[in-house]
Amino acid sequence: MRELLRVPQGHRIDLRRFDPRATPGGPRDKAAALAAAGPMEQRLASLQERLYAASTAGDGRRVLLVLQGMDTSGKGGTVKHVIGMFNPSGCRITAFKAPTPEEHAHPFLWRIARAVPRPGEIGIFDRSHYEDVLIARVRELVPRSRLGSRYGQINRFEQSLADEGVTVVKAFLHISRAEQRARLLERLDNPDKHWKFSPGDIDERALWPEYRHAYELALERCSTAAAPWYVVPADRKWYRNWAIAQLLLEHLEELAPRYPEGDFDVDECRARLIAT
Amino acid sequence: MRELLRVPQGHRIDLRRFDPRATPGGPRDKAAALAAAGPMEQRLASLQERLYAASTAGDGRRVLLVLQGMDTSGKGGTVKHVIGMFNPSGCRITAFKAPTPEEHAHPFLWRIARAVPRPGEIGIFDRSHYEDVLIARVRELVPRSRLGSRYGQINRFEQSLADEGVTVVKAFLHISRAEQRARLLERLDNPDKHWKFSPGDIDERALWPEYRHAYELALERCSTAAAPWYVVPADRKWYRNWAIAQLLLEHLEELAPRYPEGDFDVDECRARLIAT
Repeated sequence: MRELLRVPQGHRIDLRRFDPRATPGGPRDKAAALAAAGPMEQRLASLQERLYAASTAGDGRRVLLVLQGMDTSGKGGTVKHVIGMFNPSGCRITAFKAPTPEEHAHPFLWRIARAVPRPGEIGIFDRSHYEDVLIARVRELVPRSRLGSRYGQINRFEQSLADEGVTVVKAFLHISRAEQRARLLERLDNPDKHWKFSPGDIDERALWPEYRHAYELALERCSTAAAPWYVVPADRKWYRNWAIAQLLLEHLEELAPRYPEGDFDVDECRARLIAT
Repeated sequence: MRELLRVPQGHRIDLRRFDPRATPGGPRDKAAALAAAGPMEQRLASLQERLYAASTAGDGRRVLLVLQGMDTSGKGGTVKHVIGMFNPSGCRITAFKAPTPEEHAHPFLWRIARAVPRPGEIGIFDRSHYEDVLIARVRELVPRSRLGSRYGQINRFEQSLADEGVTVVKAFLHISRAEQRARLLERLDNPDKHWKFSPGDIDERALWPEYRHAYELALERCSTAAAPWYVVPADRKWYRNWAIAQLLLEHLEELAPRYPEGDFDVDECRARLIAT
């Protein structure tokens, strides 16, 4: 399935040509997606345990899922869904907000490097270093020349992650502008959701074409062999959840982690244990 | 329920008098516990969201669940169960292993303080600063005088957490020695579980009475009004899971966090949003 969503390297991207309601490679409908979830969850949990177990014997491999998308595209909901399928103890979730003064005093990749999953872990980034070429571009937070050099810095950084055994899976959750309006209205209509809303969200939304363009550049320039981008249609939450799980499944199956063999005498240990 | 499990302040504790198969205050059986889980989960998730929402408006309160217990007592399984009920994005899980050289070079509470949940979060410690009066005592890792002063340091540290709005819930997962043997044998009998086993586990098990005594001292000396200890019978996993959820529920309901009110004009925002 992942080849259907993968952004080809070195091509121009026009996000308007990607349908946010599409369901490439996915189950027929929501009911079918729910039915598929159980078996997928079992396979994912089993693969994660193997990955973690392998790390205890020196296997340095790990997985990093990077989630990006416009406001309300479902990054938080995806995190909840993904974690629900794994053992959370083996996951490292980081939500990146506006940089703190300390983070700001460092190169933009500093806080990212610190959050990279350790061997055996599944890391999840809710936003990431891509904000530094997205909002940073749209809001002109840095001079254009510095911005321009960041794409190459990102590619070299992600290459070094791959070299260290990190499988980087970058998912752009693609929603339509109409769907964002509906989701923001839902927040406004429910007083219990007001804390999630800020009038600034409407100002950001007004910059939709500028953000789309910034995403197109990031997808074009940073979908590499070492760390490809996937465009995940996200207007339908059931497809989004299925697609993210499927992406992780395909990558984990490719890694094919194995339980390490014990370096002890099982029979002797059993005898000692029974004696206690 | 929590009063049934709470360790009274300033009393001697004999853990042999606590039945690890008991189910104080709990559902009748496993089926009833499973039936109760759904509604509990909904209430917990709702309270967690309110706690998190309140923090965005300046409420500094948060919850820290500290899990301790002998090997195989189910700390990891409890983490998985608890996280399954919450939104993981609002949780901060830390598993404390043997201290790294850097951690070792600092006072023992240094790495603990760094892992304390932020406002609005649910923190979970899988092991904690109590290891520094447990294995440190049994294995004589520090001189007895330094060990003796640690109980007071812990109490002052936990009091300062409470002063800052951290609700500290400390759970000792109490299993029987026979149950531990059964669980270790299970690991030995399944090659896919060998990575979880080390012959050292049998050596630790041989020190059961010493560990029990170290736990008794920790429970006696560090069950304070600011941060009480709870003894959770843990031979039955369904009771353990129910009891931890119930403890969290009672503490969160006492906190009674509330959604903050929006500081914006809803009708104006709706009109602006619809126009975009």
